Amino acid sequence: MPDPAPRADGARVLADLNALRAIGTYKTGVHKPTFSDAHMRSLQWLAARLPDAHLAADIDGIGNVLGTSTKAGPKLLAGSHLESQNHAGWLDGPLGVVYALEAARVLNGDPEVNGAVEVASWCDEEGHFGSFLGSRSFIGGVTEADIDAAHDRNADRTMRQALAAAGLAGRPRITAERGRHIGYLEAHIEQGERLETSGLKIGIVTSIVGIWQYRIGFIGEQNHAGTTRMEIRKDAGVALAKFCVAIDESFPNLCGPRTVWTTGRITLDPGAPSIIPGGAEMLFQIRDDNPAVIDRLENKLRGMAADVTAQGRIGVTVERIRTGAPALMNDGFQDAIEAATHAVAGGKLVRMPSGAGHDAQVLSTIMPAAMMFVPSIGGISHHWTENTADADIVTGAEVFVETCRLLLQRAGHPNAGS
Amino acid sequence: MPDPAPRADGARVLADLNALRAIGTYKTGVHKPTFSDAHMRSLQWLAARLPDAHLAADIDGIGNVLGTSTKAGPKLLAGSHLESQNHAGWLDGPLGVVYALEAARVLNGDPEVNGAVEVASWCDEEGHFGSFLGSRSFIGGVTEADIDAAHDRNADRTMRQALAAAGLAGRPRITAERGRHIGYLEAHIEQGERLETSGLKIGIVTSIVGIWQYRIGFIGEQNHAGTTRMEIRKDAGVALAKFCVAIDESFPNLCGPRTVWTTGRITLDPGAPSIIPGGAEMLFQIRDDNPAVIDRLENKLRGMAADVTAQGRIGVTVERIRTGAPALMNDGFQDAIEAATHAVAGGKLVRMPSGAGHDAQVLSTIMPAAMMFVPSIGGISHHWTENTADADIVTGAEVFVETCRLLLQRAGHPNAGS
Repeated sequence: MPDPAPRADGARVLADLNALRAIGTYKTGVHKPTFSDAHMRSLQWLAARLPDAHLAADIDGIGNVLGTSTKAGPKLLAGSHLESQNHAGWLDGPLGVVYALEAARVLNGDPEVNGAVEVASWCDEEGHFGSFLGSRSFIGGVTEADIDAAHDRNADRTMRQALAAAGLAGRPRITAERGRHIGYLEAHIEQGERLETSGLKIGIVTSIVGIWQYRIGFIGEQNHAGTTRMEIRKDAGVALAKFCVAIDESFPNLCGPRTVWTTGRITLDPGAPSIIPGGAEMLFQIRDDNPAVIDRLENKLRGMAADVTAQGRIGVTVERIRTGAPALMNDGFQDAIEAATHAVAGGKLVRMPSGAGHDAQVLSTIMPAAMMFVPSIGGISHHWTENTADADIVTGAEVFVETCRLLLQRAGHPNAGS
Repeated sequence: MPDPAPRADGARVLADLNALRAIGTYKTGVHKPTFSDAHMRSLQWLAARLPDAHLAADIDGIGNVLGTSTKAGPKLLAGSHLESQNHAGWLDGPLGVVYALEAARVLNGDPEVNGAVEVASWCDEEGHFGSFLGSRSFIGGVTEADIDAAHDRNADRTMRQALAAAGLAGRPRITAERGRHIGYLEAHIEQGERLETSGLKIGIVTSIVGIWQYRIGFIGEQNHAGTTRMEIRKDAGVALAKFCVAIDESFPNLCGPRTVWTTGRITLDPGAPSIIPGGAEMLFQIRDDNPAVIDRLENKLRGMAADVTAQGRIGVTVERIRTGAPALMNDGFQDAIEAATHAVAGGKLVRMPSGAGHDAQVLSTIMPAAMMFVPSIGGISHHWTENTADADIVTGAEVFVETCRLLLQRAGHPNAGS
C-alpha cells in the first residue's frame, strides 16, 4: 500500500491569506491597486515565500512574479493575482496564488512526485492599466508600444511612470517557454452564490464566458428645456431610457440560461438640467459562452435600433466595441479537478461557466487551462465585504493540491489517466 | 391733428444688432461668455451708444451697464443682456438691449415725450457664474459673499478673478433707486415656434414660469456584471430608466397645457461597463406657471418613488432642490403692449407664458414688469443657428418703441389710460 497522498496544510494556507490581508488592509478587505505600495509589498512577500517551495523567484518588467523549478519532470503552472480592485475583498486573487504556493510547497520537495508546480502572480488582472496585461505579456501579447500607451485609471499617470515608481522600469519581461508547461490551473472565489445556495464546495469551470460590448448612441435635438413644448421634443435621454426598458422586456425571451446583460454607464449630452439632451449614449455589455445566443441578442438590439430610427424622431446607432471570445477549459483538467474533489471533498461539485474574466482565459490560448471555484458568502464580489468560510478555503486548498498531484502524475505516465 | 407718433428706425436697429454680432462672431451666431473679451467689448459698444440717446453711461462692479437720464418726467427702465450662451445665437439678449436703446434714442430727445427710457444691460443672465446675478445685484439681492463664492462654469477661475481680468474689480455696484422707475420692459426672441406657426408677430408674456428641480436617487446593490444572475440583481440604472419611462407615461394625464419636464442629467454609480450600478441619479426639472399643477406632479413623483421602494429591491428618493416662483407680468403693461401692437403691427399678437427665465422676473419683484416676444425661426434657441426674420425684428422694434411711448404718456397723465 503506498503512502497516503500529500495534503495541503489548511492552517498554513489561512495564515498566508491573512498575512496578505494585513498588507493594504481596508476594513475586512484590502485596497491594493496595481503598482501601489501595498501591491508591491504583496509581490515581495510572495517572492520571499517561493524558495520554501523549491522555486526561484523573479519579478519581471510588467510586475509578474514567477517561481520556477529546476526539478526534473513535468511542470504545471498555477497562480492568480495579488492586486485588488479599489476597496475590495481579501480573497479575489490571493486565494489562487496561495493555493498555487501551497501546492508547490507540498509537491515540489516530495521525491515521490514527478515534476513540479510553478507559481505565477499575474500583474493587473483587475485592469487598473489595461486588460489582463500581466498574463497577456507572458504569452507575448503585449508590445512595448502597448505599455507606452497605457495609463492609470485611478490617477493621472502613465503606466511607464507607475512602473518606474514601483522600481520595475527597465527590467526584462518574462515570456512563456513554449512546451515547458503541461498546462495552467487557477483557483478563485466564485463571485456568485450558486455553490453556497446548493451546498457545494467546488465549481469546475467549463468555460469563461465572452464579453461583447456595445456603444449605443441616440441622436435627437438639443433644445431649451423651458420653451420647447413636449409634443415637438426630440429627447435623446428619454429615448435611451425607453431602449433600456425594452431590452429588459425582450432579452429574457431570447437569452440563454446563464446570459447576463448590463448597462454600466449612461451619458446625456450636454447633461445640463435646463437643456433637452440632444445626444445620449449607453455602454452595454452582454456575457455568454455561446456565440449563437449573442448573435440572437445582437440582432435584436440592431432591430430595435432600426425600429426607433424608422420612426423619424431619434436616430439610434449600435456599435460593437468589444467582441467576446469564450475560452473553453481543458476537459482532461476538468476531470482531474472532479477526481480530486471526489477524493478529498466528498464530490460536492458542479460544472459551471465563469461569468467573470480570468487570466486562465489568456493562458488557455497557449496551453491547456482550467479553473476551480470555491463558495462566496452571499455571492459578494469586488467589495470589501467579500468572504469565504475558512472551512471552504481549506477544502478548496486540499482539492487544489490533489488536482495538481493528479495532473503531474498523469503527465508523468501518459497512459495512466486514460 | 397731432404729429404722428415717433417710430423706430428699423435699419438702425438691424445695423446695431449686426454690429453686436460682429463682436465675438461664431458662425452665424456669437460666442460671448460672461466677462469674455467679446462680452466686455459689447458692453463698451453699448456704453458708447448711450449718449446718442441722451443717457449717461456707467458700467458697474458686476458688469451691468446702465444709461440714466436727467430729463424730467417719468422714467421707464428697459433692457436685456449682452453675454451669450456658449456658441449661441446673435439675438438672445442683444435684441432687447438694442430695442431699449432705440426707444431711448427715439423718445428721450423728443420734447413732446414726457419722461425718458433708461437702458440696462444686465450681466450674466445666461448664468455662466450664477443665476441672474446682474439683475439680482440691481435689486439688492446679491451680497459680496455671494460674489466671493461664485465661479466660472466654463473655466477654472473664481468670479473675483474674472471681474479683475475684466477690469471691474473694486467698482461700486449700482442698485435700484426705489420709486425712480414706473416699471421695466424687456423684449426677447420667443425661443419657441408658437408665434411662427401661428403667423403672429408679438407674444405678450403673461407670466414667467417657475422652475422646480429634483434630484431623484436610486439605491440598489453594486455587483459584478459577469457573475451576478439577472434574477437576483438590484440594478439602480435599470430602475432609473423605468422611472423615466413611467414619468413620460403618467405626466401627460396630470399636467397643465404648457407644462414641460426634462431629465437633463443621468449618472450611474460607479459607471463602469463591467459593474452593475449600485446607485443612480437623475436631475429632473418641471416648469409651469401654476403651483397647483406642480403639486399634482410632485405628488405623483413621490408616489411612484414610494411604490418602487415598497417593492423592496430598489430604494428611490425624491429631493426637491429648487422651488419655482412664477413671476406674473403687470396687467397694465401687457395692455400697453397690446395697444401698441394694434397701432403698428395689425394686432397680430397672443398672450402666452414664458417657459424660459428672464431678468424681467427679477425686476418684477420691485416694480411693474412686462415682456414681449418676437418670432424665432424654427423655435431654435441656445444654438448658433437661432434667428428671426429681419422684417419681424423691425416690427418688434416698432411695437417696443410705441409701447414705451404709451407707458410714459400714461404715467405722465395718470388717468389717461384708465
